[in-house]
Amino acid sequence: MIVVLKPRATNEDTSKVVNLARKFGFDVNISKGAEKTIIGIIGDNVYERREAFEALNCVEEIVTVLKPFKLVSKEFHPKDTIISVGGAKIGNGNFEFVAGPCSVESMKQMEVEAEFLSGLGVKFLRGGAFKPRTSPYSFQGLGVRGLKILRKVADEHNMKVVSEMMSGQDLELFEEYVDIIQVGARSMQNFRLLKKLGESTKPILLKRGFMSTIEEWLLAAEYLFHHGNDKVILCERGIRTFEKYTRNTLDISAVPLVKSLSHLPIIVDLSHSTGRRDLINPLSKAVVASGADGAMVEVHPDPEKALSDGQQSLNFDEFEATYRTSMNLHRMMEEFIWNQE
Amino acid sequence: MIVVLKPRATNEDTSKVVNLARKFGFDVNISKGAEKTIIGIIGDNVYERREAFEALNCVEEIVTVLKPFKLVSKEFHPKDTIISVGGAKIGNGNFEFVAGPCSVESMKQMEVEAEFLSGLGVKFLRGGAFKPRTSPYSFQGLGVRGLKILRKVADEHNMKVVSEMMSGQDLELFEEYVDIIQVGARSMQNFRLLKKLGESTKPILLKRGFMSTIEEWLLAAEYLFHHGNDKVILCERGIRTFEKYTRNTLDISAVPLVKSLSHLPIIVDLSHSTGRRDLINPLSKAVVASGADGAMVEVHPDPEKALSDGQQSLNFDEFEATYRTSMNLHRMMEEFIWNQE
Amino acid sequence: MIVVLKPRATNEDTSKVVNLARKFGFDVNISKGAEKTIIGIIGDNVYERREAFEALNCVEEIVTVLKPFKLVSKEFHPKDTIISVGGAKIGNGNFEFVAGPCSVESMKQMEVEAEFLSGLGVKFLRGGAFKPRTSPYSFQGLGVRGLKILRKVADEHNMKVVSEMMSGQDLELFEEYVDIIQVGARSMQNFRLLKKLGESTKPILLKRGFMSTIEEWLLAAEYLFHHGNDKVILCERGIRTFEKYTRNTLDISAVPLVKSLSHLPIIVDLSHSTGRRDLINPLSKAVVASGADGAMVEVHPDPEKALSDGQQSLNFDEFEATYRTSMNLHRMMEEFIWNQE
Amino acid sequence: MIVVLKPRATNEDTSKVVNLARKFGFDVNISKGAEKTIIGIIGDNVYERREAFEALNCVEEIVTVLKPFKLVSKEFHPKDTIISVGGAKIGNGNFEFVAGPCSVESMKQMEVEAEFLSGLGVKFLRGGAFKPRTSPYSFQGLGVRGLKILRKVADEHNMKVVSEMMSGQDLELFEEYVDIIQVGARSMQNFRLLKKLGESTKPILLKRGFMSTIEEWLLAAEYLFHHGNDKVILCERGIRTFEKYTRNTLDISAVPLVKSLSHLPIIVDLSHSTGRRDLINPLSKAVVASGADGAMVEVHPDPEKALSDGQQSLNFDEFEATYRTSMNLHRMMEEFIWNQE
Repeated sequence: MIVVLKPRATNEDTSKVVNLARKFGFDVNISKGAEKTIIGIIGDNVYERREAFEALNCVEEIVTVLKPFKLVSKEFHPKDTIISVGGAKIGNGNFEFVAGPCSVESMKQMEVEAEFLSGLGVKFLRGGAFKPRTSPYSFQGLGVRGLKILRKVADEHNMKVVSEMMSGQDLELFEEYVDIIQVGARSMQNFRLLKKLGESTKPILLKRGFMSTIEEWLLAAEYLFHHGNDKVILCERGIRTFEKYTRNTLDISAVPLVKSLSHLPIIVDLSHSTGRRDLINPLSKAVVASGADGAMVEVHPDPEKALSDGQQSLNFDEFEATYRTSMNLHRMMEEFIWNQE
Repeated sequence: MIVVLKPRATNEDTSKVVNLARKFGFDVNISKGAEKTIIGIIGDNVYERREAFEALNCVEEIVTVLKPFKLVSKEFHPKDTIISVGGAKIGNGNFEFVAGPCSVESMKQMEVEAEFLSGLGVKFLRGGAFKPRTSPYSFQGLGVRGLKILRKVADEHNMKVVSEMMSGQDLELFEEYVDIIQVGARSMQNFRLLKKLGESTKPILLKRGFMSTIEEWLLAAEYLFHHGNDKVILCERGIRTFEKYTRNTLDISAVPLVKSLSHLPIIVDLSHSTGRRDLINPLSKAVVASGADGAMVEVHPDPEKALSDGQQSLNFDEFEATYRTSMNLHRMMEEFIWNQE
Repeated sequence: MIVVLKPRATNEDTSKVVNLARKFGFDVNISKGAEKTIIGIIGDNVYERREAFEALNCVEEIVTVLKPFKLVSKEFHPKDTIISVGGAKIGNGNFEFVAGPCSVESMKQMEVEAEFLSGLGVKFLRGGAFKPRTSPYSFQGLGVRGLKILRKVADEHNMKVVSEMMSGQDLELFEEYVDIIQVGARSMQNFRLLKKLGESTKPILLKRGFMSTIEEWLLAAEYLFHHGNDKVILCERGIRTFEKYTRNTLDISAVPLVKSLSHLPIIVDLSHSTGRRDLINPLSKAVVASGADGAMVEVHPDPEKALSDGQQSLNFDEFEATYRTSMNLHRMMEEFIWNQE
Repeated sequence: MIVVLKPRATNEDTSKVVNLARKFGFDVNISKGAEKTIIGIIGDNVYERREAFEALNCVEEIVTVLKPFKLVSKEFHPKDTIISVGGAKIGNGNFEFVAGPCSVESMKQMEVEAEFLSGLGVKFLRGGAFKPRTSPYSFQGLGVRGLKILRKVADEHNMKVVSEMMSGQDLELFEEYVDIIQVGARSMQNFRLLKKLGESTKPILLKRGFMSTIEEWLLAAEYLFHHGNDKVILCERGIRTFEKYTRNTLDISAVPLVKSLSHLPIIVDLSHSTGRRDLINPLSKAVVASGADGAMVEVHPDPEKALSDGQQSLNFDEFEATYRTSMNLHRMMEEFIWNQE
């Protein structure tokens, strides 16, 4: 950590910083320029003390040199993490789809979905039972009944259930019905929820907040690790920018970046990333080629009748095309591209 | 609501939209241009059906003409809302400060704070007991003990307690110890929390998410109203932008905008808006002049020793200067400016 | 175009809008809801009159239904544009690299570059002679001498020259020495420059402004067309967001979006998109798979000694790897993926 | 300047950096942590060499400690700059309005404007003659004829002319007809234009790019100084964010920030900052209270008939109210607030 003092800082100011550092057992290295004094602070877990230095009046700026996350970092744990649920895996080099409707609407709908998706080879079935909605007047999901439907049809088709949990109070319920617990974009910094999920034995699918930096996202994963859960899948889902033709801007660079910073698997939500059905197919190829471990897509037997997110859901034919293309491309990437590098 | 059809939409497509509208009991008005067909959909609560239209394949775009919020809107409720807690009021034309440390650290610290602040005339004492922190390694607050300290010192100095609640599970606790429950920026779209707080009889201080539009913010307030709580104070606290000299960008326009859109009072968090101690004083004047109902500021007896947010906290002398200036300016605005308009 | 009137608009207000529309020879369609009146305005080039309606006091909002660009749109000109320079083409289904150093530094450097790049098969040689630099203290380029060097080495190796022009005053110079004139991100809305380039017979490589929407970008291209130049290549180069690990955020969705909106070819600047050398290779694959027509990369014989942008330039070995991978992937995409769709 | 080496950097890497620093005549200070090595580089104008270090492979990050601008900084030139044009001044502690229509439309319109504005006491008359327009189909201004109109009516009413120049080629023209040359938001990083204006003796009104950080803005001013022109007025005009109710987000913090970083006067463009007529009056008060040196406003005799920007222009009555309120508030701020601090 580097502490930059204000332009007219005195020797007394320097001493103040040095003494504080020594109090915490850190080493210091002072560098006096003509205009500014810079103090390097060296020691274990120096960042946990960042605020103490930041608060000093003589300090202009603190520069962090080490990444603030640890347990999720590649440096700490160089081997890539593979998430395993029953026989199904994410992060083992394959490309997996997590597919299903935005919201669970009925047993019938989900039976049709599971039948179709498992027939293609999709192993992960998604569906919202508790829905975070911007407006209180929008459909809020079927709740427990939705979870039960998901579990039933998934079991019948040997699929794994992925569903979003909005509150720590629902953990018992999710432990019972769900295989992978999703943390939604709006909950990425719901720290109480993260702590609670730290106690769970289920893998967590952690979506990036649409307003969160990659660093904040990895720190959210660090919360899960710190509180006991090291089974985390990251999911990029688009960030908020000024562009208007898409609902969000897919940050494709997050895939290789996360791969270099962390050992965790990363997938991409193709539906929320842009909010446009017509971009899912072309972008699915970019996502495969970027090296992601999978993709999430909203698929509905009849998107025109979906109770939510119909405009960014694929129908069965569209999904089948996207699925086959992505799988073909992934096989080719493996055989002819990545193996040659 | 206006439904814009895709360029090559057919008569059948038009009928599809019209029939759907009629099914919901809405009126329609069709406008066929050379290149595009536009269908106006008219009726009560038409927006609750927005998604059904959005999902249709032939639809290019939905344009919303009415604001999606209702209960919090000025049109629905033209009279300005005044929040009253004991004798203290927010929204009655005065300018109120909500002041106190970022985190409650000890009984001693809070006694000194409350003594000082109440002496100046500040009626609202803030302090974090449960802290949302980006890193799991940062100080997380004193929890219940913090709430008890707040209550005790506030009662001794006839102040009202404002503190942030992070989870619906803590409601009973907050009902017991706190006068105004704060919803933090990261929780603005924690809809489960909002629903729970809808059941509370306490006023809610609803901070704007740092990447939330004003519309989303007012919809979050609408959640509170819809679930039963109409005592809401809005709090602008800066939004995330590309600018780097400030931690956030204070969106001062939000003050007059909210005043024209809604009947709810609005205050501004001067500490988080920029993250810089040196900007609090100059910006406090701009905030008073913008017509806000108050300001929130982090104040600490010794910011250099604060356990959190020291770099954006004022010491007692600095706060006193800001407080007196703001109060003077507010009086002058009332007497010589607003009264003349 | 849809004109939405303010909540309490009167019949007189409606007449005002209708009369203005009729004055311009447009048709109107009035739709009166309980709370708002909406007026559809139909006619040729209705958007050129947008401001006249926007200025009316009774108007709350104007909603544009048609895209504001025309000549560059796919609807107007469904056949994809192919840019041809000598024998070299962009937009004909191949994937072309535009490569070379950020700045032309010397004849020697450029000879080495051109030798190497042409040897690999690269047809387009880039290099900055007039450099837009954020600070007046940074290296500003060799100017005319740089252009002459580019021309000479390009001719010796049968390559085409791409270089950025910063002012209309330099057009004659660029016409003489350059094959494709680049408009930089900061000049995308330098309308005087665009008008001047409209008179040129050279193809224009139009970079997207780092804070420009896709609509504004296509309108900039429309300027070129409108003023006489229909040889335009679009170049996505990352947009400014809140993310900090990358200098910009590559908006990969722009590729399929532009392909659906316009007939113009689009390439991606892999160096500026993220500002990080280590992301160029993984992202080049995503860019190929997204369907782009090519990529621009900064390549330097010794990036550690580059006078500018060294940190986002590849050395020869790194570029060769990226080049070969991209070309292989493109061939595979053509043979096994796009052909099957 | 601080150079942070990559995690596994060797002693050789350290030497490489040290040798490069010594080659430039700089001092170094090495700080070796357990995980990273940090090298402080000390010397005059060290930032002009930043890129040379950035390009080294072993370098992970460069941290700048000093501000990259110099001539415009308060540290370099502590006394506030006052811009003087004829008798009229900006930056001398008064609050000045720069007012007039978006575009000069006719002699008649401008006569009415100048008559009205000068009658109120406004000294600076603005009006666009060469208009930067996003679409080639929008009104592009009257050109030279507009400048002549401006000059004539200004002279008749003893006002000073402010107008935007879009290209260096027009300098002679502007020198003849205009008193203060405006650089528009889209031209803030048109470095050729800045260099050219560096040669002018006229004061420059430099608008902040809507996509530019305050640092980039001050560097643009530094270009003007570096090339010979030290008469610069800064103008904040709103930045691009995700918020949709306003066209831009007024960054009010820029006012006190610029005041602390630079000696240059700063005014605020109230029309472009939000794009909404109804926010001009409330925000004008916030701008006065923030300590700005003035404001720019679009005023039109009949905004409903304006050829451009009518929706963000005030009519005469509205402007008069805003003007009087702002002037009253400024007087009160001077007498009762700033004097007491």
